Amino acid sequence: MTDVRAVPSSASYAQTLRVPFSMCDPAGIVFFVQYHLLFQNLVESWVTERLGVEYSELLGTRRVGLPTVRLETDFRASSRMGDRISVSLRVEHVGTKSLVLLLAVHGDDGQLRVEARQVIVCTSLDTHRSQPFPDDLRTALLRFCATP
Amino acid sequence: MTDVRAVPSSASYAQTLRVPFSMCDPAGIVFFVQYHLLFQNLVESWVTERLGVEYSELLGTRRVGLPTVRLETDFRASSRMGDRISVSLRVEHVGTKSLVLLLAVHGDDGQLRVEARQVIVCTSLDTHRSQPFPDDLRTALLRFCATP
Amino acid sequence: MTDVRAVPSSASYAQTLRVPFSMCDPAGIVFFVQYHLLFQNLVESWVTERLGVEYSELLGTRRVGLPTVRLETDFRASSRMGDRISVSLRVEHVGTKSLVLLLAVHGDDGQLRVEARQVIVCTSLDTHRSQPFPDDLRTALLRFCATP
Amino acid sequence: MTDVRAVPSSASYAQTLRVPFSMCDPAGIVFFVQYHLLFQNLVESWVTERLGVEYSELLGTRRVGLPTVRLETDFRASSRMGDRISVSLRVEHVGTKSLVLLLAVHGDDGQLRVEARQVIVCTSLDTHRSQPFPDDLRTALLRFCATP
Repeated sequence: MTDVRAVPSSASYAQTLRVPFSMCDPAGIVFFVQYHLLFQNLVESWVTERLGVEYSELLGTRRVGLPTVRLETDFRASSRMGDRISVSLRVEHVGTKSLVLLLAVHGDDGQLRVEARQVIVCTSLDTHRSQPFPDDLRTALLRFCATP
Repeated sequence: MTDVRAVPSSASYAQTLRVPFSMCDPAGIVFFVQYHLLFQNLVESWVTERLGVEYSELLGTRRVGLPTVRLETDFRASSRMGDRISVSLRVEHVGTKSLVLLLAVHGDDGQLRVEARQVIVCTSLDTHRSQPFPDDLRTALLRFCATP
Repeated sequence: MTDVRAVPSSASYAQTLRVPFSMCDPAGIVFFVQYHLLFQNLVESWVTERLGVEYSELLGTRRVGLPTVRLETDFRASSRMGDRISVSLRVEHVGTKSLVLLLAVHGDDGQLRVEARQVIVCTSLDTHRSQPFPDDLRTALLRFCATP
Repeated sequence: MTDVRAVPSSASYAQTLRVPFSMCDPAGIVFFVQYHLLFQNLVESWVTERLGVEYSELLGTRRVGLPTVRLETDFRASSRMGDRISVSLRVEHVGTKSLVLLLAVHGDDGQLRVEARQVIVCTSLDTHRSQPFPDDLRTALLRFCATP
């Protein structure tokens, strides 16, 4: 098991939803800022539900932060209120103290709507400095990446 | 079947979720404004999934609005990031052009956290005036209320 | 100077803004939930700028919370993207541990668009129990109410 | 006057604000998604107040959309509740149908907190296809860029 991974994982994690009214703008389509909220919620569910590390405990009692330090997003096609969409992630890279995720939104016709690359760093919420991922999270990340 | 109903329905509609990071404030608890977003999303799912009337079509092609005209909310206890909560609704009253909902948030320990009463009016999105509920929605509302 | 006040203050505090795109829904009007965000931001500015008690220090270093425990809102008329609106507050009541505010949104034609009554309680962010307002905040509140 | 501009404008447009409670997360700092909301609001004010083209009319009666198609953001340092921050933009490039903006958030100590590059395209809200900027907006954009 190596601590660096530089190709996207085969493994992915996804959630589906219907675009609610509250995410849409006066043009009747998803307001672009809302996609980043979907991505944040997806990452959080992934950490808790799939990696098995309780996100709220990480930030709460364990004082481990996972802030986003870089975000690149391409908005390729719009999604309308009521559309069924899928939000998914794969891991592009796991380092000692950082993580790169590839995120995507697809319509239920398979159309790619939004693509993003998000760099997340592990920090101490007490010192606000970067620090290595805690062991349980790191092990879970590498296991996820190794999933065929 | 009568068109007025003045006691809360037995029937209820509920969703459960884990409180995500993005809903919480610097005190680590759900920011009170976010509950109204949960309620809006619940109402929308209820109309589409349970009443069987597509909410996005109502507002989109059918040009029928369902704006909230009055809201009363009591915030009884706080919810923390990671808490499992249930958001639920019952119908207090169905009129010709309006609807009163009783909404609630409970913790998974059964504790009542938030209670709200929301008055919704049926409008035309073209004239912005109130109008009777369309027949399919009205029928579905009354059927929901009559569910034991 | 008494610690209870049961009629709305003459004094008011207001901010004006143009309704931005991001506050509007697919019907092109302000999404009702957004008004509560405006009210929260107004209260915060009022405490810091007008009462002279730094809100972020209250919640931060001083560990004093000001959560909303009850909210009643009437949405009387809609506001559209680009409208100039005024958001204002008066004090209805100041108690030892709680505060009742009357909030309003007016269009620049003077039309009343939204009215709300918001009950705020003073708490300790450590014990999460209610507690009397700190002296500086209490004094500033009563002075505001006494302003002719 | 040329229709292409490939170096950042000297001219800039900025707004200052105090970070409100509602923009902050459980770590007490601005939730990263909120910066994109600030950027959207800044762009809108810039178009209306500085370029002199009413944004709400563009999207409303004129049916001209200005969706974001690409966003790159670096979050370099965090901002805390109560911080005074400045949000600013310069123009990197104006094309026939698109616009590239450089956005930044600085603390009142001059520290660069967030940097972003946002690509905006001009579309018809009827056909949802890209189209050249309307003449008034194009002229205003080029005049802004030519400001020393």
